[in-house]
This record gives sequence, C-alpha cells and structure tokens, in this order.
Amino acid sequence: MSSERPRGRRPGDSGTRDTILAAARERFAAHGYDRTRIRDVAADANVDPALVHYFFKTKDGLFAAAMELPFRPAEVIGPLVAEGVEGLGERVVRRLLGVWDDPVNRAALLAIVQGARAHPGAASALREFVTREIVGRIAGAVTADRPDLRANLCASQIMGLIAARYIAGVEPLASLPAEEVVPLVAPTLQRYLDGEL
Amino acid sequence: MSSERPRGRRPGDSGTRDTILAAARERFAAHGYDRTRIRDVAADANVDPALVHYFFKTKDGLFAAAMELPFRPAEVIGPLVAEGVEGLGERVVRRLLGVWDDPVNRAALLAIVQGARAHPGAASALREFVTREIVGRIAGAVTADRPDLRANLCASQIMGLIAARYIAGVEPLASLPAEEVVPLVAPTLQRYLDGEL
Repeated sequence: MSSERPRGRRPGDSGTRDTILAAARERFAAHGYDRTRIRDVAADANVDPALVHYFFKTKDGLFAAAMELPFRPAEVIGPLVAEGVEGLGERVVRRLLGVWDDPVNRAALLAIVQGARAHPGAASALREFVTREIVGRIAGAVTADRPDLRANLCASQIMGLIAARYIAGVEPLASLPAEEVVPLVAPTLQRYLDGEL
Repeated sequence: MSSERPRGRRPGDSGTRDTILAAARERFAAHGYDRTRIRDVAADANVDPALVHYFFKTKDGLFAAAMELPFRPAEVIGPLVAEGVEGLGERVVRRLLGVWDDPVNRAALLAIVQGARAHPGAASALREFVTREIVGRIAGAVTADRPDLRANLCASQIMGLIAARYIAGVEPLASLPAEEVVPLVAPTLQRYLDGEL
C-alpha cells in the first residue's frame, strides 16, 4: 500500500490537516456533500486517501471538521435512533436543546448557518449533509408508512424550533428552560414519527 | 388642519409615494417596527402624516409596501383569527400554503427573507413586524393558558414548514400537494393553540 502513496504530504507535515480541510471545503462547496468522495479530496490535497481517513475517519467527520461543527451529528443522532422509534421524539428534542442551549455550540452553529447563507455552495452542501446524516437517520428509524415524509415533518419542526428559539429569539419560548420545552414539542415529533397521518 | 401642513410634497407630486417608502425603509431599519411612528416617517419624508395615511392607511400597510410584501399580513391573518380558535390550525396552514405555493408570492417573500439576512436592521424590523402583526394576532385568538407561548410554538412550526418546504426544499414534503400537507401539520398547530400543554 505505502508504495502506492503519491509523493505528497505526510501525517507529520505541518499544515497537512489544514490543507485537507481547505480542499474539502472547496470540493463540498463545488460538488455538494453526496457527490464528494474522500479520495477526491485526497487527490485535491495531494495526499493519500488513507491520510484523510487517519485524520477524519469518515466523510461526515471530514465535513464536520471542514465546517468547524462543534461535534459530529452522526455521533449525536446515532445513539438516539438506535434505541428505536419509541420515545424518539422526546430524545431528539432533549438532545437538540442540550446542544443548542450550550453557548459555545450555539455560537459555532450560528456561525455555520450565517456562513452558509453567504455561500450558496456551502448552503447546498450543508443541506445535503443534514438530509443524509440527520434526516436520513431519523427516516431509517421509522417503522410506519412514509418514513421520508415523516422525517421531513420532524425536520420542519426541528428547524422551526431552532429558528424561533435561537435565531429569532421569540419570547417567552427563547427563555423557557429546556426541560419545559421538551414536553411541549416532543409530542409533535412523536406524532410525525409513528402517529396516524 | 391643512393650515398646519408643512410646505412639503403633496399627493400629486411625482415620486412622493417613493419618497415616503424610502424614508420608511430607513426608519424601520434604524428603529425597528414597534418604535417607528407614521408621523416620524412623515417628518423624515417632509410630508404631512395624513398623506402617509392616505397612501398606506396603517403602519402595517406602510411596512408591507416598504418591504414590497405582496400582501398585508394583517389582512390575511385577521379574518382567520376572527373565526375563533376552533379549526384555526387548519385555516392557518391552508392559507399559508395558499400564499407560499403561488410562485409570484413565493419569489417576493424569498427576496424579503434574503434581503433581511443581508441587513440586520431590516431583519430586526421584520422580526418585530411578524411578532406583532402575525404572532400577536394568533396569541390574541387563544383562549387557553399561556397564549404568547402557544403562539410562539405555532410560529416555530410555521417557520419550520416554510424553511423545509420552500427554502431547503426537502423531499417529499416540498412536492406534496398543499391539500395533503394540511392534515399533516394542522393538528400540530391546533394542539399548540388549545391542547393540553
């Protein structure tokens, strides 16, 4: 394997990680999330694909690092859906509020939203990423009919809760303790997940 | 009254209406919606306040014209809430989809959202306007406890539906006929309006 590695940068090189991230940002913005492959980013950065895996493990890890996400969404949503659809609405709302109520996370996430607004390519890549890694995972947990539509509806209430509480800051919702918000919104998600539609 | 009118522009003046709208845009962006009075805009534009009323009737009419809204939200939401809280969730969703599914309205509304993103003053004025003229009117129709919070929750689902269906365009929700979306989302709003929270 190592004989096939192009004569490029190596793990020890100063700035190699940043070079990969810069290449990733350009490629995600130009081609979107779905059509970007790790090996394309590696080629753009003139490194072995194994090096990209070494630094970022998976494509969603690479995207999270490139966008400076404070966490990997797949790592957050994965354990929630793994427990099945029962109570998933409540788990999602509680986790969402836990992430967004943290001022450090919130600042990072708002910066990403604002950055995406300014760059259509980044917005499109972010949309594909959210669709695949968050909405798609929720759809995968649905056992009822129309799983994609159900996950869309969940996404609509989740986006709206973020917009109302954290972006527009409408009161009293913006100042309500997370524990009081959970029972207000969780039944909406749960109906979308497994209710009669 | 007419003796008090400042020596300024009159209804017949070419461009008077545009002068008023330019003054309104500046003042709304600088001071927000709530703290802007028609007489301040009139003074900025060097016209009699009666002339502003003549052209735009009310402050929300002036704002709608200044923002190039394709309609006056108060005129849309007013008749819906006038019928009371029963069935209001369904009426709001149906009307919302009717407005946003129209390509002309949608283009105008998306332009306003994009413009607001680029100008913090405009965004803030738009938020105050929506809070007072839409969310406030919904809260006014609520007869249960916590009307403001209930209206906030409705706003969260409404914003999320707009974001998912018309801005992000998530599928299959974005392509679903309006009549099929209504029964999916209306129960969410109705529970927020008069359900046990």
